[in-house]
Amino acid sequence: MFEISLRKPDGRQLTLYSRRPIPADLVAPSPSATAAPVNPHFRWQPLRGEWVAYAGHRQARTFLPPPDYNPLRASNDPAAGTELPAGDYDIAVFDNLFPAMSMSAHDAPASIVPSSPGTGHCEVVVFTQDAQSSLGALARDHIELLLEVWGSRTREMRKRGLHYVLPFENRGQEVGVTLHHPHGQIYAYPFVPPVPERMHQREREHFAANGRAMLATLIEAECEAGTRILFKSDHAVAFVPAWARYPYEVWVAPRATAPDFESLSPVQRTDLARALKTTLLKYDGLWGRSFPYIMAWYQAPLVGATPGAHHLHAELLPAYRMPGRLKYLAGTEIAAGMFTNDTLPEEKARELQAVEVSIEEDR
Amino acid sequence: MFEISLRKPDGRQLTLYSRRPIPADLVAPSPSATAAPVNPHFRWQPLRGEWVAYAGHRQARTFLPPPDYNPLRASNDPAAGTELPAGDYDIAVFDNLFPAMSMSAHDAPASIVPSSPGTGHCEVVVFTQDAQSSLGALARDHIELLLEVWGSRTREMRKRGLHYVLPFENRGQEVGVTLHHPHGQIYAYPFVPPVPERMHQREREHFAANGRAMLATLIEAECEAGTRILFKSDHAVAFVPAWARYPYEVWVAPRATAPDFESLSPVQRTDLARALKTTLLKYDGLWGRSFPYIMAWYQAPLVGATPGAHHLHAELLPAYRMPGRLKYLAGTEIAAGMFTNDTLPEEKARELQAVEVSIEEDR
Repeated sequence: MFEISLRKPDGRQLTLYSRRPIPADLVAPSPSATAAPVNPHFRWQPLRGEWVAYAGHRQARTFLPPPDYNPLRASNDPAAGTELPAGDYDIAVFDNLFPAMSMSAHDAPASIVPSSPGTGHCEVVVFTQDAQSSLGALARDHIELLLEVWGSRTREMRKRGLHYVLPFENRGQEVGVTLHHPHGQIYAYPFVPPVPERMHQREREHFAANGRAMLATLIEAECEAGTRILFKSDHAVAFVPAWARYPYEVWVAPRATAPDFESLSPVQRTDLARALKTTLLKYDGLWGRSFPYIMAWYQAPLVGATPGAHHLHAELLPAYRMPGRLKYLAGTEIAAGMFTNDTLPEEKARELQAVEVSIEEDR
Repeated sequence: MFEISLRKPDGRQLTLYSRRPIPADLVAPSPSATAAPVNPHFRWQPLRGEWVAYAGHRQARTFLPPPDYNPLRASNDPAAGTELPAGDYDIAVFDNLFPAMSMSAHDAPASIVPSSPGTGHCEVVVFTQDAQSSLGALARDHIELLLEVWGSRTREMRKRGLHYVLPFENRGQEVGVTLHHPHGQIYAYPFVPPVPERMHQREREHFAANGRAMLATLIEAECEAGTRILFKSDHAVAFVPAWARYPYEVWVAPRATAPDFESLSPVQRTDLARALKTTLLKYDGLWGRSFPYIMAWYQAPLVGATPGAHHLHAELLPAYRMPGRLKYLAGTEIAAGMFTNDTLPEEKARELQAVEVSIEEDR
């Protein structure tokens, strides 16, 4: 993997990644020459025991721009107002223009609850220069490169002293995506956020009792049952979990426990890319349309990890429960935290199993 | 409060509530003479430590029916296919036709994770016979009656041995509501669900350390600060909390600690109705349109409550962050559990404070 880091006119960082050497003469553009004022802060939600991030400047962020404006388009035309230069590279990562957290956050207003500067980091990961493509449509090796990029970014966030790194993709207008160019985001938190924190607690308990990662035990059970498996190879697996909260929910993971992207072996990365690509192609093939979802990758925390307990995996949470019918999160899900699933994981797995996909083109 | 309980042809229960004696000759209709087969089950999500409810029969439920069909319409015409008889009553409660949990759940499929019958209860609360009205538009005394009804339902669920009762309203197509007739729901769980359970834990810690309910302390601080208050009287308050996760989030609560609806005094109920009505009228007045939200009322658990620690309150979570722009819950909210709020609670409170409403008409 080749990489170079550039500085944008407004001070933000741009890092380019490629399988080939990257031209040394690339110049990082930015939509505006000056940086937007950025000073997010946290406040403590005392009844949930959670930090909430406040970032008033984000209200102005780009929303469904007209088709002729794509800030993720690679262009060397200064009038294009883009974030990326044209040139030979595969994947680009840059600091979010409207971050919910920032390493430069410097103060927080006093409040009746604890508050603190919104220290952290938010960045955009552009999966490809092809605006018409999608993550699942990329070559397997390109997806492998993305897994390496996520590892590299995690390493960088570790250096900055942050505690948790979450790479995710919000795909589709249904989940609020503002730009259709294939991209994801990385949020790096100065604390372990509530959802992974609770997961880690359960993982630690399982590890203490069983000497192995909880998800490794569960993946073994899923492979033995076989009924919900979408992809299985020596090193990776994709399946509709028996405990799916969403219709068509899919988990993608290495079979052997790896805590994070940095610790994946090359064969694990290859198989993981195949498992992910298979899942995404099945999604788009299911109803013959772009399938919206939230995809989140859970790694071990950067601080306080229990070796052996945490098992890297992705959770893919679809927006629809059937064609044209959204899965709304309402009273019981949002307010009580108990999810209701109107479908059985076994049935949704069968539907996805029946979608034939081929990922052999780039082997 | 007057109430009568009736049995529908398909076996479900209907209870009618009124300030006036209810005619004894009312007959409970149901859309179909026979009950749909209902057997939801729970499975354990081992990495979150949560139960998920599976109810395959729910996929068939009514979705945005044509305007001429309203199953919540009060009618004595057998061909109307409604849930409610015509007659003199104010509020109706009936067993959900497509429940996510049911007292008659009888078995659960074996799975690689723990599973159990989906024992519990889901019911629909029809706020008024007027299909064109809304909760906020009802007379204050009518809203007081609703608070009494919620108390009565909670008492009933306590008798059935359930552990937690959540009255909520999903309002608006934006949060997936299937019927526009003013109504809410009650979910009664056989366990304390994750969100209130975590809240109770924090409430218990605060009570142990301070000898009073955490929310009572916070309400006092909100009243002292004053800047986010929407309504304040001797016995109730409505405010945008300093820790709001959603733009225009509002909490409504009695000022003195009461654990649940059953324990409210008449003056608390009156003031709480005024606080709620004020909030809802401000919502609808803000942009001159029906304002969609999720409203949830948190009570003490029915089992294992700590006397003095739990403070009844409603959280109103709006769907929009500005006119025409939804607040999407995506990567960081859904996958990490850290909410980002693009607005400051103080600013949103000022906007709502500026909406003038009058609730004096029925005093």
